[in-house]
Amino acid sequence: MSEDKHISPDWIAVDWGTSNLRAWAVSKSGRALDMLRSSDGMGGLNRDEFEPALRKLIAPWVAGGKTTIVACGMVGSRQGWIEASYATVPCKPLPDGMIKAPTANDDLSIYIVPGIRQNNPSDVMRGEETQIAGFIATNPDWDGVICLPGSHTKWVHISAGEVVSFQTFMTGEMFDALSQNTVLRHSIADTGWDDDAFHAALSDSISKPERIAARLFSLRADGLLTGQSPQIARARLSGLLIGAELAAARAYWLGQQIAILGDDALSKIYANALNEQGVPAMLTDANYMTLAGLNAAYQSLKETA
Amino acid sequence: MSEDKHISPDWIAVDWGTSNLRAWAVSKSGRALDMLRSSDGMGGLNRDEFEPALRKLIAPWVAGGKTTIVACGMVGSRQGWIEASYATVPCKPLPDGMIKAPTANDDLSIYIVPGIRQNNPSDVMRGEETQIAGFIATNPDWDGVICLPGSHTKWVHISAGEVVSFQTFMTGEMFDALSQNTVLRHSIADTGWDDDAFHAALSDSISKPERIAARLFSLRADGLLTGQSPQIARARLSGLLIGAELAAARAYWLGQQIAILGDDALSKIYANALNEQGVPAMLTDANYMTLAGLNAAYQSLKETA
Repeated sequence: MSEDKHISPDWIAVDWGTSNLRAWAVSKSGRALDMLRSSDGMGGLNRDEFEPALRKLIAPWVAGGKTTIVACGMVGSRQGWIEASYATVPCKPLPDGMIKAPTANDDLSIYIVPGIRQNNPSDVMRGEETQIAGFIATNPDWDGVICLPGSHTKWVHISAGEVVSFQTFMTGEMFDALSQNTVLRHSIADTGWDDDAFHAALSDSISKPERIAARLFSLRADGLLTGQSPQIARARLSGLLIGAELAAARAYWLGQQIAILGDDALSKIYANALNEQGVPAMLTDANYMTLAGLNAAYQSLKETA
Repeated sequence: MSEDKHISPDWIAVDWGTSNLRAWAVSKSGRALDMLRSSDGMGGLNRDEFEPALRKLIAPWVAGGKTTIVACGMVGSRQGWIEASYATVPCKPLPDGMIKAPTANDDLSIYIVPGIRQNNPSDVMRGEETQIAGFIATNPDWDGVICLPGSHTKWVHISAGEVVSFQTFMTGEMFDALSQNTVLRHSIADTGWDDDAFHAALSDSISKPERIAARLFSLRADGLLTGQSPQIARARLSGLLIGAELAAARAYWLGQQIAILGDDALSKIYANALNEQGVPAMLTDANYMTLAGLNAAYQSLKETA
């Protein structure tokens, strides 16, 4: 979007994750005027490097005067710019308690959205609460379960506008670790897909999740013995892991109204898997929900000001 | 063992895995006179580097004349020195079909033990068949199940001196990948242990293996929220994964006579886990079994010569 023209945002929205930093210049009406991104994720920054990284990214939008910024994500973790303590479920996805980040100059006022914790069983989210807030702002009075697929897929039970409970599955990260850091790397392609293989593995894994530990090495053995293609192995591993997740997350989706909020391709895989279980799922636009959530946070800031 | 004295072996036994190369100078009576090792594992060698790596290691023992060498392990894989094709179950652990490796000079006669395959479900072993042969040579008439714990733990059903069926679990490699290559690395210690945490996780995972996908992220969340120590997290991850393996391997150990053949520390963990399920297990010496198996292969070579 960033062309050579003057952008004068009313405020700036920031989604600052472990690997990436994204910022939107937002108009008074809540519309995105521009978007910029960099690879200055939280994971690569020391505490004193956050402010310079942000100033560098948003420099085209800041022409003197004071600017308000609302940020969500790992920027608020213990290893981030400043820790924005977790709120505890049940709670609104945007509870009170945004924290102001320390800055060298007071031209920038930067507020960080707190994450959410659950004490039993232990679980945490940081960043997803903002997308959930955006979803609720967009779909008021919606009760059900939001699935946010990703490296750490989250299943979140929403009732009366509050996060009631949630559960994280490391499915995406397990897929990466198994396909890249174990002997399976010799048998699994980096890209490619086979729908039939995915659905067969998914169905096997949902119905017999206790067999998952026995299934994984067969991805390697089938590559050696039957000439199974690395694309089929890739789809099978995904099916096995998502199937094991769905089996363990059954209480979250069985008989529930489901919305899926995440990356397009992965969201469709989850929607297909749920459809096979007879569960319809609504697909939503994750970027839109992030911005809508940050906007809700910004509005609450103005109300309390 | 290697002191400065003349070692004149009758033949040389070699265990050549992915990461390591070990050789024993063996007397006419089958006794190890000396042992040498190097890090020249199969994984780091091109095809033409195997002979130089072996000659370098065994140079102190070879003083002209002809030498017979019997080798097992990944040296016989498709990526190894020369492929020693798999025998198919049911079969003796040392079926006919040792293959002679090509050498620049005929002073060395190198025979490689074939691995074993199973067609349904697909599975393979290479190296373990030699340990199993050693176990059977040492315990003739033994029927039951041998568990070989390691990066790729194998459960092997033995009857009438044959390998009837087997199943590989990637438990050790999953432990490494999850504890080193995912977000869990922030919450899991490299060393340390907690017996109570291990047994609680093991018991939970054996009885509800379908919940494993839901348990993993709690290792991270408990580190963040309850101050769980990285040593406890380490023992819990091990308990969860071994529990899932035992749940999926139940047909291999329930009501069976079990022998465990592997690294001492890991073998004891498996023995404890099985004991808790009311299954006694015999611990054996893996190095002894490897050498005994290579000796059995050498004897069969002399018989067919």
